[in-house]
Amino acid sequence: MKSDTLAVANRAFEQLKHGLATGEWDSFLDLLTDDFTLWFPAGRFHGLNQGKDKAREFFHYASESFREGLEVILDRVTSNETTVVFEVRSQGKLRGEAYKNRIAISLDVRGDKICAYREYFGSDGKSY
Amino acid sequence: MKSDTLAVANRAFEQLKHGLATGEWDSFLDLLTDDFTLWFPAGRFHGLNQGKDKAREFFHYASESFREGLEVILDRVTSNETTVVFEVRSQGKLRGEAYKNRIAISLDVRGDKICAYREYFGSDGKSY
Repeated sequence: MKSDTLAVANRAFEQLKHGLATGEWDSFLDLLTDDFTLWFPAGRFHGLNQGKDKAREFFHYASESFREGLEVILDRVTSNETTVVFEVRSQGKLRGEAYKNRIAISLDVRGDKICAYREYFGSDGKSY
Repeated sequence: MKSDTLAVANRAFEQLKHGLATGEWDSFLDLLTDDFTLWFPAGRFHGLNQGKDKAREFFHYASESFREGLEVILDRVTSNETTVVFEVRSQGKLRGEAYKNRIAISLDVRGDKICAYREYFGSDGKSY
């Protein structure tokens, strides 16, 4: 059911923001399937990361990197039966440096869990 | 109506692929509103590009850059009442160099036209 897909993804997105703000990731990680995969565009987690252990490592690294604060503004949400995409703008400090980005996060939902997370950069900050 | 939104965006996506494959952009450009905006993550069009003239310049530049061929694989489509997101993988040659990317393209639909295009990179190729 599409409404369930959206509800599950919205819950995960709220927990993602909570994790980034607090460094507490247990509630978010509880929403992931054991075979969860994560695609990230850059840095030491660039590419495909498989499994919950890798996810735990990634998300702790993310909140650690943004420990000085990250503002996350949700612009729009699109969905189909199994996938929900969140388009967000974010800004703050990344390990002490001014940071600004546009991001699309695509979540695949299976049952009441998230089985895949794909992140895309719109790169609001410096060019590369 | 959501079905119309999807139909308009699908038509634009087909014309986008046609333009990339052929360098013929007139049918695609006809689908854009006069106040069309384009967000691109990198390079000389990095950031916000406004208006159809800028769009014409950008898309011709894109097909010119990929004139040696670009394969575009559509993985999934999500939507809401006004926006449709296409997640694609692409590979080919970018000005002679091997190129591979994962991309999310978000299109805003107004009536039977596209009023905004936002591109996000998942960066399947080299890290940056």
